[in-house]
Amino acid sequence: MSAYETLDPADWEDLRSLGHDMIDDMISWMKDLRDRPVWQPMSIEQKEEFFEDLPDRGIGPQKVYEEFRSEVLPYIMGNPHPRFWAWYMGSSSIQGALADFLTSVTNSNAGAGNHVGQLIEDQVIQWMSEIVGYPKMAGGIIVSGGSMANFVGLAVARNVYSGHDLRSEGLRQSDRQMTIYASTEVHSCNQKALELMGIGANYFRRIPVNDDYTIRIENLRNKIAEDRSNGFHPVCIIGTAGTVNTGAIDDLENLAKVCEEEDLWFHVDGAIGAIAMLSDHVRPQLKGIERSDSVALDLHKWMHIPFEAGCVLVKDRKQHKSTFQLTPEYLQQNVRGLASGNDWYSDYGIQLSRRLKALKIWMAVKEYGVLKLGRMISRNVEQAVYLASLVSEDPELELTAPIGLDIVCYRYKPTEGTYDLNALNKEILIQIQELGIAVPSYTTLNGNYCIRVAIANHRSRRNDFEFLIQATINIGQSIKEDFVI
Amino acid sequence: MSAYETLDPADWEDLRSLGHDMIDDMISWMKDLRDRPVWQPMSIEQKEEFFEDLPDRGIGPQKVYEEFRSEVLPYIMGNPHPRFWAWYMGSSSIQGALADFLTSVTNSNAGAGNHVGQLIEDQVIQWMSEIVGYPKMAGGIIVSGGSMANFVGLAVARNVYSGHDLRSEGLRQSDRQMTIYASTEVHSCNQKALELMGIGANYFRRIPVNDDYTIRIENLRNKIAEDRSNGFHPVCIIGTAGTVNTGAIDDLENLAKVCEEEDLWFHVDGAIGAIAMLSDHVRPQLKGIERSDSVALDLHKWMHIPFEAGCVLVKDRKQHKSTFQLTPEYLQQNVRGLASGNDWYSDYGIQLSRRLKALKIWMAVKEYGVLKLGRMISRNVEQAVYLASLVSEDPELELTAPIGLDIVCYRYKPTEGTYDLNALNKEILIQIQELGIAVPSYTTLNGNYCIRVAIANHRSRRNDFEFLIQATINIGQSIKEDFVI
Repeated sequence: MSAYETLDPADWEDLRSLGHDMIDDMISWMKDLRDRPVWQPMSIEQKEEFFEDLPDRGIGPQKVYEEFRSEVLPYIMGNPHPRFWAWYMGSSSIQGALADFLTSVTNSNAGAGNHVGQLIEDQVIQWMSEIVGYPKMAGGIIVSGGSMANFVGLAVARNVYSGHDLRSEGLRQSDRQMTIYASTEVHSCNQKALELMGIGANYFRRIPVNDDYTIRIENLRNKIAEDRSNGFHPVCIIGTAGTVNTGAIDDLENLAKVCEEEDLWFHVDGAIGAIAMLSDHVRPQLKGIERSDSVALDLHKWMHIPFEAGCVLVKDRKQHKSTFQLTPEYLQQNVRGLASGNDWYSDYGIQLSRRLKALKIWMAVKEYGVLKLGRMISRNVEQAVYLASLVSEDPELELTAPIGLDIVCYRYKPTEGTYDLNALNKEILIQIQELGIAVPSYTTLNGNYCIRVAIANHRSRRNDFEFLIQATINIGQSIKEDFVI
Repeated sequence: MSAYETLDPADWEDLRSLGHDMIDDMISWMKDLRDRPVWQPMSIEQKEEFFEDLPDRGIGPQKVYEEFRSEVLPYIMGNPHPRFWAWYMGSSSIQGALADFLTSVTNSNAGAGNHVGQLIEDQVIQWMSEIVGYPKMAGGIIVSGGSMANFVGLAVARNVYSGHDLRSEGLRQSDRQMTIYASTEVHSCNQKALELMGIGANYFRRIPVNDDYTIRIENLRNKIAEDRSNGFHPVCIIGTAGTVNTGAIDDLENLAKVCEEEDLWFHVDGAIGAIAMLSDHVRPQLKGIERSDSVALDLHKWMHIPFEAGCVLVKDRKQHKSTFQLTPEYLQQNVRGLASGNDWYSDYGIQLSRRLKALKIWMAVKEYGVLKLGRMISRNVEQAVYLASLVSEDPELELTAPIGLDIVCYRYKPTEGTYDLNALNKEILIQIQELGIAVPSYTTLNGNYCIRVAIANHRSRRNDFEFLIQATINIGQSIKEDFVI
């Protein structure tokens, strides 16, 4: 047996032992996360030394794992840490990682074929449909994340509303230029999708927002009317359920109404907020999501599934399939055998071969149940309110935006004197990161640079936020004199 | 500690024990693969019973794993098995699955930020560039698979050659209709990409092939000339390095010449064959690949990385970036801190949040070295020749296409009598699958249904092919009378 060379381990028992070590190391690592810096940078020298020539001969699995432990593990991004609140990411879990291990060992192709993978994905899509209030047999697919989920939803909208055989004839043969609508706070991935689809960023209409960063419905209606009178072809409104800057949720109920009246596709970018349908506190704010035509979710965010786990739902399954189905000879489906079935997931998205990402979602929902997942979301929302109260109570801090969902934006502002507040807050944030205290990110709102805390983290506790606030003030006070103007 | 509810395990030691069980079970499962059926179908009753209501409360990790073992594991696709040769997939490995476990525990976002994930992906892209003969600093990104790799390459081609500001203005504002060229054997994902990009399938010119299923260069030149004279805008030729039906490799050297003379983008769909640059036997057939502008690879195929691991390389890094870069406020890059760096992978593809797929590739290259990975490829090519010799030697079998790379197409054809050969071979194939003997797939070439054996499998041995041939003949002889015409 051992004489026959394969990519399997030379010695199965050695590998078993290595696997056990990995389990032990990673469980200890996850358990003791709080005792380590959230993030630490690599030096320029370390970065240069990282690279090596393409190796002719291998060093075996044990030595590779040693390199992982010494050269990789200390310098990861850090998002599983209880005080990581940058951009908008999930925190992962050992259980989710084990599910990914099982997914990779078995390595089924979720794009095609008659095997259990399809049932697992069907089940997850049905559950997600139920969560957002869609019919049970809605279309949908698990994708890499919010960017791809929005891409798929918008592609269906484009094709359904094109008015001609767009798949065959392309956009150049359209009689009118399509236009798409969203607020100025819409996530950039939607623009990227529209550019890639050939619609053009200039025809993506960004509508101003209210003080709470939600889309102004009247401006939207006016712009649609103006576009129609100028010969454009309005096709789709994107509502945002949880903007990336401040967590604002557009008035989905009213957007649904506009779409119905104007005969437009209603797509909801719910990458941040749609899964908060699981939270009793948030659900009422999402009213109207069930009236959309498609919705993008991101389960590697607030559901903490390890990357990647996005999901798009399309209410009309046939419309979804008609955008993506393409069946050449070698994909002809049979009545029996592995190639049987008539509804493969490769007919619902870009990919043909697909990792069975649905397995880890299926396992997480079963392990936790949705009530617990909902409690984790509700707690983050409460923590945002708590953090905002800490900010409000301190005379040297100010909130720079209303709290939306679980996102708090604030800045340090000494009570007296004149400072370059943008530069000062930028330096405070970087020191907080470099000292390994916490990792918030930042954004600029109305010209003000601010520290942005996106609390999609099931490990965060109240004292983590107290720690952040104390660090902000301490660092601010110690460096502010360098920023006097 | 335990009073504070998180998604971490209620008892870390219980989870440690579960993790060890999974390692033991999966190693035994992988080691004993050969003793089990390649694939087995679920009954209709089993499928119906699989579904359950969205659970309010969870059952914990141990019970979920029990469900995985009893309800999922027996009914997976089966591609790690030594006699799985359907479509074109990789075989995975325990080591690759462990790498996926490490990826998910640490859960870095490979789309953005100053962390080691970016270096790992840089390193993998550099290695892949070296493998295909590209300059070291070529652009590239790890993607979900061949479909997305082709999508990215074609998107860059479209934007670079559009002749106007396509990202802003879209395709409707183009002055001429773009046309793209490939052979009739090109993979369907390229058509899907062109449809999604808004170019339209009608403008994807499928050029006839030679007897060896490679593109006819003269027909290609003629079609380009004809299109130009009719006012079309030829933009890109897609060369295929390993067609999905028969493994044919287009004459890449001559395609590069046509592209240079005609000023067209040269994209190589190398999802099946490009990584065979590692094989001394195959490399000479791929000559010219280094002259392309972009190339798609699929490392979850012939490199056996677990799903998903595709790769696209774009020779001109700036052209690649200019197609995808989009930087809103919340993604502004800094000089220090986690958000430092100026070359994030989200600027090179559709996704913003990205799983660090590069880690498992990095670990595999280091563990095995490229010589061993090349030997695995070469051996599959030799096995295809061996299988073809078995077919040729048997009077009741016939090859239905030349052997390309590692793909053999054949059919059962009794020496006497008249049979519905298509129906007969279809039934033979399904019985081979249903009996768990082997899993080849099928295709139709010149109207002939044939059994297609794609040997991208590091576990296959010579006697596995003897077993397949014997089963084909045995089943064929036992059922042929039902197919007399």
